[in-house]
Parts: sequence; structure tokens; C-alpha cells
Amino acid sequence: MSKIRLSTISTTAPKKLDKEKIKAETREILIELDELQNLLYAQHKYSVLMVIQGMDASGKDGVIKNVTGTLNPQGCTVRSFKAPSTEEAEHDFLWRIHMHAPGKGMIQVFNRSHYEDILIQRVHKWIDDKIAFKRMRAINDFEKLLSVHNETRILKFYLHVSPEAQQQRLVERTEDPRKMWKYNENDLAEAKLWDKYMDVYEDAFNHCNDIPWIIVPADHNWYKEYVIALTLRDTLKSLKMKYPRLKK
Amino acid sequence: MSKIRLSTISTTAPKKLDKEKIKAETREILIELDELQNLLYAQHKYSVLMVIQGMDASGKDGVIKNVTGTLNPQGCTVRSFKAPSTEEAEHDFLWRIHMHAPGKGMIQVFNRSHYEDILIQRVHKWIDDKIAFKRMRAINDFEKLLSVHNETRILKFYLHVSPEAQQQRLVERTEDPRKMWKYNENDLAEAKLWDKYMDVYEDAFNHCNDIPWIIVPADHNWYKEYVIALTLRDTLKSLKMKYPRLKK
Repeated sequence: MSKIRLSTISTTAPKKLDKEKIKAETREILIELDELQNLLYAQHKYSVLMVIQGMDASGKDGVIKNVTGTLNPQGCTVRSFKAPSTEEAEHDFLWRIHMHAPGKGMIQVFNRSHYEDILIQRVHKWIDDKIAFKRMRAINDFEKLLSVHNETRILKFYLHVSPEAQQQRLVERTEDPRKMWKYNENDLAEAKLWDKYMDVYEDAFNHCNDIPWIIVPADHNWYKEYVIALTLRDTLKSLKMKYPRLKK
Repeated sequence: MSKIRLSTISTTAPKKLDKEKIKAETREILIELDELQNLLYAQHKYSVLMVIQGMDASGKDGVIKNVTGTLNPQGCTVRSFKAPSTEEAEHDFLWRIHMHAPGKGMIQVFNRSHYEDILIQRVHKWIDDKIAFKRMRAINDFEKLLSVHNETRILKFYLHVSPEAQQQRLVERTEDPRKMWKYNENDLAEAKLWDKYMDVYEDAFNHCNDIPWIIVPADHNWYKEYVIALTLRDTLKSLKMKYPRLKK
């Protein structure tokens, strides 16, 4: 498989696409997802793990609100991973992650994930490369465990924004009273580490691609949401699920 | 490494050993363990996972009571794994196990463990060999995760009893009012599957030996407890732990 180079991948929607048409199509997909999620839950065989990664202000919360937010919350849960708690840091880095792996029939969304342990931690040199590459192998083993041993379909999305789009959104957070709660004075300092983040992201993509990453152009929210809804729909459809028969 | 063949390993204490001397030595070791456990907890770097496996009536509960029962319960917890709950069965077989992996500084005891998923499940053909061997690979990955990524020292003990000793203990449970609570009518049926259990245990030992199994002759409780206390003591000593300096 050819290597993923973020600088060669567009952050914008393909020019030929019509925004309103795509938004209408997304609405149709979300209606289809309703029935597909019901089947997933009823058949109780497969589960889906959606990993949402991306730089600050890349639109992770928006995906969760607009795509997975339309699903039945009985069968869809979201977990945000922040800095590890004291208890979590007592354990290996996958311990707190494993606890939130989806049970059969469930769709679990990770807002950030185990990948942070090879991203922010590398950028700030809290871990060295040797540990980072060991962790990548552990991540591959772990994702295999979920998929082979519990029929979990893992969808790993990277929300690919340009540094300009990020900057604009971060500034908005300082100006828009409805967005100020999201502002973190640390974000601007982190944004200056852009190139370093791109390097470690590329390593994550290229070394943890047994279950492939999906790079989502994310400068336009309507396109980003369309790609993610479409991927989820196609994944669920490919499972050829059936409602279980009445037990006698 | 040469293959483990249970039929070639004695289930009894070496004849030359003096029971009373060994019991006195075990008491000394338990006193040493008190200080070593304190160090483990204070240094907060390593942890220990003791996996206790064995046939019914092989003396698992006795080890937990007499060896680990003397440790400081603030730094030592025991988890018994029974048939999976409905929630646990929704997940891959290591999900419920991972949750109880020891945090730094802790000694965690597993009374039965993830190994049951390649033992009882194989004997009763709830899983086929293909799944069993896949699980063994997942177990190796998992144990590596704990040891490489959280400095957990894993001690896997198999309490090796003879079928005659087991039979005698099971009969005792039907006759001794203090032991009747342990009796399970299923145990006698399981005991008839002895040879099948030995086969699947040998597979577990020979395929999941990256972190080596310790086969403990267990017909004599005094010897079994000595071996386990000694192994734990030597493991903790080998860590060359030091009390942390005062933080300034």
C-alpha cells in the first residue's frame, strides 16, 4: 500500500460537487442509517467503532452532533478521551480504551482515542520513538483483537483540515460568544506545532493501517459529514444483516 | 524450549523435603513479602499479576487465603472469573480481563482467568480449534501489552494435582459440612473429562508460554504454598526496587 502523505491530500471538497445536493444526499443517508442501526442492534452480532481524530477545531464535535447524533442513543454511545486520570495512568495506555469498546449491536464513537498516545505524547516528547513504535504495534494487536474476536468493524477517520481553516476557527472561538467555551489558551500554542503533528499523524497512519485510516477532507463541514455518513452506511450495508427469527 | 507434558511432572512435593521445615520457611518468606509489597506500592513503577489456574479442588482458594491473604489488601486485590455475564459476553473475551489488570504498585490475583476461554470452552466444544488458537495468539499479545506497556510482571501458576487427589477432595466436599458450600454437582461430571482437560491445558502451556507457566505440584498444600510464595518473593526481589526520594 502506498504511503499516506497528508500534504498531497486535499483538505477541501471536490470542486465539481454541489453543496446543496450533497447535503440532501446526506439527509437521505441518515434516514437509511436509522434502519441499518436497528438491524445492527437486533441481530446482535456485529458492532462498530468509529474513531474520530483530528487537530483542534477540525470539526470532531460537529461530526458527532450531526452524523452520529441522529442515531438511536440506545445503540450508540460516545466516549471522549481527555488527559488520562490518575487511575487510568496507573495502567497500560489501552486499558481505559478497551473498557469502552463496543458491545455487540452497538455503535461506539471515540472522540479522540488511543491514537493520542502516539500523537500529542510524541510531539511533546513525553515518550521517545522506541516507545511510540512499540505502542503502534500494540495498537495493531488491539484493533485486531476487537475485530477478530468480537466482530467489531473499526472506522478510523482523520478530519483533514488546512492550517488556515484551523486558524480561522480558533480565532472564531475567541470572538463568538457561543463558541468561547471551546477556547483553550493552550490551543494556539499547540497550533504552532502543526508540522510536528503532521509528522506523527503520518507515522500513525502508515504504521497502524492494518485497519485502514480514512482521510476526510474537512475544510467544508457539509462534505466531511457526507463522507462519514456514507462510510458508515456502506459499512453497515456490507454486513448483510438480517433480523433474527423468533426463538421457539 | 521443551514442551510441557503434564504426565511427566510430579504432582507431589519432592520426597527429601521436610514438611515442617518448609512451612517455617514459608512463614519467613511471607514476612519478607510484607516489606517487598510495601516497596512495590511506594515505588509505584511495577505491578504483579498472579494468574491461578487449576482443576476443580486443586487448591486455588487455599493459595489465595494462605499466600496472598497475608499481604496488605490496600495493595493486593483478587478477582474471580466465573461464567461471563451478559454484558461481558457482548465483548471480546479479554475485555472483562483487561479491566482488572493491576495498576502500578498493585498485586492483582486472578482466580481463574482468560485461560478459561481456551480450556472449558474447548473441552465442551463451545469453540473450535481454529478459534482456540486465534485466542492463544490474542492472549500472547495481551500479556505482552501488560508487561511491555505497564511493567506488569505476570506469574502464571498451574496447580498440578493428581486425579486421585482431586477425587478425594471432591468427595470431602460432600461429607464435610464446612466444605459443602463448595460442592457443585457439576464438578463430578467435569472431573470425568480429566484427560480432555489435560490436553487443552498442555496446549495452553505450550502455545502461551512467552511469559512462562509455572507448574506447581499441588497434591500437598504446604509445598504448593511454599512454591508460590517463593516465586512471588524472588520476582519482587529481582526488581531491585527503591523507595522514592522526597519530591521537592
